[in-house]
Amino acid sequence: MPARARTIRALVFDVFGTVVDWRGSILRECRALGRAKRLAVDWDAFTDAWRAGYRPAMARVRSGELPWMNIDQLHRMLLDELLQRFAIDSLTEEEIDHLNRVWHRLDPWTDVRRGLALLKRRHIIATLSNGNVALLVNMAKHGRLPWDAVLSAELFHHYKPDPEAYLGAAAMLGLEPSEVMMVAAHKDDLRAAQACGLATAFVRRPREKGPKVKVDVSPEPSFDYNARDFVDLAKRISR
Amino acid sequence: MPARARTIRALVFDVFGTVVDWRGSILRECRALGRAKRLAVDWDAFTDAWRAGYRPAMARVRSGELPWMNIDQLHRMLLDELLQRFAIDSLTEEEIDHLNRVWHRLDPWTDVRRGLALLKRRHIIATLSNGNVALLVNMAKHGRLPWDAVLSAELFHHYKPDPEAYLGAAAMLGLEPSEVMMVAAHKDDLRAAQACGLATAFVRRPREKGPKVKVDVSPEPSFDYNARDFVDLAKRISR
Repeated sequence: MPARARTIRALVFDVFGTVVDWRGSILRECRALGRAKRLAVDWDAFTDAWRAGYRPAMARVRSGELPWMNIDQLHRMLLDELLQRFAIDSLTEEEIDHLNRVWHRLDPWTDVRRGLALLKRRHIIATLSNGNVALLVNMAKHGRLPWDAVLSAELFHHYKPDPEAYLGAAAMLGLEPSEVMMVAAHKDDLRAAQACGLATAFVRRPREKGPKVKVDVSPEPSFDYNARDFVDLAKRISR
Repeated sequence: MPARARTIRALVFDVFGTVVDWRGSILRECRALGRAKRLAVDWDAFTDAWRAGYRPAMARVRSGELPWMNIDQLHRMLLDELLQRFAIDSLTEEEIDHLNRVWHRLDPWTDVRRGLALLKRRHIIATLSNGNVALLVNMAKHGRLPWDAVLSAELFHHYKPDPEAYLGAAAMLGLEPSEVMMVAAHKDDLRAAQACGLATAFVRRPREKGPKVKVDVSPEPSFDYNARDFVDLAKRISR
């Protein structure tokens, strides 16, 4: 067992892309909506544009240009723009609100439930997502994700990769940063966690951006673990 | 099914006394400590004094006399006084810290795990405790409590019965206060929740203060439910 594994008390997980397949889930629901409402929309482009707006929107909050807004609010701001851009004008307010909450109904990757069950045996497992608490709680009910705690940037009013999010999560669990390991499919998230003293586990999610986009899934020796998926991570940690 | 039950989305639970038997758990651990360290202490009096200090300590935070301190910190402040008062001077710092965290290791009442599993099927179940997040997460691991979310006064920097705690919990779950039901064995907690627009469920815990102290377990028609225990509550809600 690597020295690390003995001192790690909690694993905190990035969620969008790492735990759940946001792209596949949103595409499925949007296509069904398109059929039901007879909308001729390029849903691949729509879905990718929605996600592409996410980082710039958070950056505007992080810089102080926008006041604190949670992810439901940012997603809705982006969605209102997209409905215009894609000329979708036949949805009621109720339907738009329901569509905005598709982010609460994202499906986990196929290894997630089994992997989390294994990891939960010896560690605290918690989210550490930019998604708001309500979104994460509803997603956990939807996907039967057995979190011990739902931690969110919303609790700290700081989005990742601000250090306050990582340090806040460790403090809220009553742990030193070195007792907490960030698990993510995104290297920038892990590097920011590492700079705060957290341990790091990289998980490959080659299909996060769909079948056509190549994502960087190469292992990096600077991370404490590089794993294929959550089940593989559980095996490596307990070795 | 009462009208209420159809609109309730989340149940939020008081923890000390309602979910866990703080008195029995602390007594067991203190007695074991006393035997191990050969301490001649009236542990009933010690335990009751520790708990009795809790409300006045929170009141000092609520009034602004003390800055925000979480329950681990308040418990430790009280414990340091008690160690003096009960002339316990042979504990190391590590042993005192471990004793202070006995509040993280409280055992649930016997109906709790079964009741929560039933209630979790159709509702979000979350803590809403004055205990800090780390304490509640550790307690859930210790007692295998399947919370969907761990909410705490710590997130709002307001102890119950301040309205910010109840309204903050509903907002954080993305729900209206009327969609949330407070579950507690303490009528003052329920009345404060009610004043904020939450639904209320009273649960009898006649042994909370030990075998010698009578507690008020009479049902009150102003609460939406009056239940014997969590299993009984689950049955009443699904009726």
